[in-house]
Amino acid sequence: MNSISELQDFIINGHKHYMPHISIDAAIFGYHDHQLKILLSGYKALGGYCLPGGYIKRTETLDKAANRIVAESTSLTDLYLKQYKTFGDPDRIKWSELDFEKFSKEIGLPYIKDSWLIDQTISVGYYALTDFSLVTPKAGLLSDSCDWFNIDEIPPLLYDHDQMVKDALHTLRTQLYYYPIAEKLLPAKFTLTEIHAVYETLLGKKLDIRNFPKKLVFLGLIKKLNEKRNIGPHRAPFLYKFDLKKYTKALETGTTLT
Amino acid sequence: MNSISELQDFIINGHKHYMPHISIDAAIFGYHDHQLKILLSGYKALGGYCLPGGYIKRTETLDKAANRIVAESTSLTDLYLKQYKTFGDPDRIKWSELDFEKFSKEIGLPYIKDSWLIDQTISVGYYALTDFSLVTPKAGLLSDSCDWFNIDEIPPLLYDHDQMVKDALHTLRTQLYYYPIAEKLLPAKFTLTEIHAVYETLLGKKLDIRNFPKKLVFLGLIKKLNEKRNIGPHRAPFLYKFDLKKYTKALETGTTLT
Repeated sequence: MNSISELQDFIINGHKHYMPHISIDAAIFGYHDHQLKILLSGYKALGGYCLPGGYIKRTETLDKAANRIVAESTSLTDLYLKQYKTFGDPDRIKWSELDFEKFSKEIGLPYIKDSWLIDQTISVGYYALTDFSLVTPKAGLLSDSCDWFNIDEIPPLLYDHDQMVKDALHTLRTQLYYYPIAEKLLPAKFTLTEIHAVYETLLGKKLDIRNFPKKLVFLGLIKKLNEKRNIGPHRAPFLYKFDLKKYTKALETGTTLT
Repeated sequence: MNSISELQDFIINGHKHYMPHISIDAAIFGYHDHQLKILLSGYKALGGYCLPGGYIKRTETLDKAANRIVAESTSLTDLYLKQYKTFGDPDRIKWSELDFEKFSKEIGLPYIKDSWLIDQTISVGYYALTDFSLVTPKAGLLSDSCDWFNIDEIPPLLYDHDQMVKDALHTLRTQLYYYPIAEKLLPAKFTLTEIHAVYETLLGKKLDIRNFPKKLVFLGLIKKLNEKRNIGPHRAPFLYKFDLKKYTKALETGTTLT
């Protein structure tokens, strides 16, 4: 945590600059070498982890706010963040279960319960995918820590953030076939083994090694090149690349499937 | 408009029951016999059309609010509404361009400018698809009219609702292949000509009559039945049905494509 007085000011006066009742939370997935991770912010005062999040300035678009919030809470910049769902269950944050006394003591403010922050809030969910080996997150203004967690070793999260992770991962998986989400995780030219590994890891399930690439080619998502990569004696698999023109055109008019 | 006093009360006291800064707007598409339409609410006081919309009660989930709002402003109930995007550009509603004097006169309230409604608002977008021949919309509490408009004859809409329609239609089109969106528009058993017409109309483009059904079958979205329909001498095309089991399973684990 950077500065208690900055945080105090945010808690007391934040609603003058930020819209009350609305927050943003970001599910940032990281892939590298058959592993899928997610970025979690730790909050000592709240006694747990949640997705990096924050509030929207009255002068910002949602996308701009999402980028600023992620940069502030994780030190990651220039992420391709994509909105996926807004969460608005009135019971999503159980304020009655928050230990206000402990929280107030931690922050050094006696009247936190009256803050604009302690009210019904809907949250706009964003997700992103990056190569976790290339980035080292750091905690930001409001969080105490920020670390990559293996996707199957996520601790129980605060509020409704378990549901957020579930929905974000579902969106990532369904959108994998019509947005070139995985493109930045692969070299410009890749083998079928390489793209097979990425898709298997992101989807969290085994894919038929012979049938899977056929579908990608059939759908026009990847193109076979007239080039091979030499990876050993008698081993020179063909190279492929994403057909980004096809993706882009499909996104304008509908899907890649027509 | 049902009642001026009810509307006045909403404008003055609404924020006690509804969350300020957040609204819901619904793009309701209607299909029938090669035609695609959209439902628009007319507002005399605002001098134009927009998507049916409203505010969220502090006790409601977003989905529940969306259903209530649509029922109130269109008299359509039990629609399958699906959230697709939240709109949060600070300039999305240009209050400075609203003729407050005219609006106040219309409503019969002198101090509308101070209302909780006249403030920065993000809007959660929902969309739905129905058979427009089966439903007759009616105006609700806040709107003066509610009618189906042909998709290519939409008048310029208020606020950012042109963008909302564009994004909703894009979502409908991309999701057409992994949610069984079109299922309710077709009989349980249909011919390739019938599903071809639905998909062509929803996508707003020509589809190859021979190649298109092959893809749907390849992807496992539809199944050929061992049954034919007699539609004339020497004309008995095979019948098909959606593979809803495959859709449902795909939605749990990823996509229909693996």
